[in-house]
Amino acid sequence: MEDSGSLKIDVALVHYPVVNRTGELIGSAVTNLDLHDIARAACTYGVETYWVVTPDAQQQELVGKIVAHWTQGYGGSVNPNRKDALSLIRSSTCLDDVINGITEKWGVRPLILATCARPGQSTIECSAVRKMIVADRPLLLLFGTAWGLAPEILARADEILPPIRGIGKYNHLSVRSAVSIILDRLLAPEVER
Amino acid sequence: MEDSGSLKIDVALVHYPVVNRTGELIGSAVTNLDLHDIARAACTYGVETYWVVTPDAQQQELVGKIVAHWTQGYGGSVNPNRKDALSLIRSSTCLDDVINGITEKWGVRPLILATCARPGQSTIECSAVRKMIVADRPLLLLFGTAWGLAPEILARADEILPPIRGIGKYNHLSVRSAVSIILDRLLAPEVER
Repeated sequence: MEDSGSLKIDVALVHYPVVNRTGELIGSAVTNLDLHDIARAACTYGVETYWVVTPDAQQQELVGKIVAHWTQGYGGSVNPNRKDALSLIRSSTCLDDVINGITEKWGVRPLILATCARPGQSTIECSAVRKMIVADRPLLLLFGTAWGLAPEILARADEILPPIRGIGKYNHLSVRSAVSIILDRLLAPEVER
Repeated sequence: MEDSGSLKIDVALVHYPVVNRTGELIGSAVTNLDLHDIARAACTYGVETYWVVTPDAQQQELVGKIVAHWTQGYGGSVNPNRKDALSLIRSSTCLDDVINGITEKWGVRPLILATCARPGQSTIECSAVRKMIVADRPLLLLFGTAWGLAPEILARADEILPPIRGIGKYNHLSVRSAVSIILDRLLAPEVER
């Protein structure tokens, strides 16, 4: 694996608890493309671990099979770049497990930054987060599948990142796009802008 | 559809001619998720039309069926946001058709900006492209599926955008992530940074 620096940034993709279109609490299914696309973005931007959060044992098993195919099986031998990316994935049953795993790794609890497409909440500016990254503060970026993170997860975040705005009011990016854009905003070298 | 301003930006996703891992010229298959994710990103950033370029008649038919499901069929009635996004899609047989379609629309040939993950080429800075956008210059952003746009397509571009760099040397983003990041770099309001 190529050296990706020493950033203390983790990403978690939450499948439960999230909300559906009508705001009900649900669990969503893991998708193959969420694993691949987000792992590739994570690898590009020097993310330490990409946590896939689901309490469902069968879904965790699915994650394990997909990751094994690309890290130990045929996939990885044909496409080593994909191996580098998918080796960042670790499945986890719940947010507490993720926080504990990161705290063990760095010896300090990470600052939890949630993402939310809905406007109207108090948010932290990307520039402030970039300063934390420069200061080597361990950070956990939380992303929700389906229609987004459940209120109980947002309530546990230390800060919430601003919704991604483009032109106009449309704010229905895929979570794969949202992760890519947030990582780029927080982690791309200044010269790239 | 929500007002997305009056940008003269088009995006084209090329399925032929592109290259495979070993640099051979190939045609790639259309994927459902490329349609959805890129349409949603395009809609977020005020893109005028998202062109899906493939010379294969069956593949074009597939694009038409998926788009119809979400714009005229059951999908659109259940999820109007997806309808807004997928209504930006137009399939096209080749780059010339795209260029002609855009030229008809604006009365002027668009500046063609290709994207390429491989370093080593002379590229235009994002800040220069942002100035063109402010000046209302029609632009066509070209993205390649598989392992990227064929040399003959790159040779037809007026400019090439810099490869997306994160931390380290890994440069194997999905095309869905690449489109999202490029649109954000070129089109997100300055205040978002």
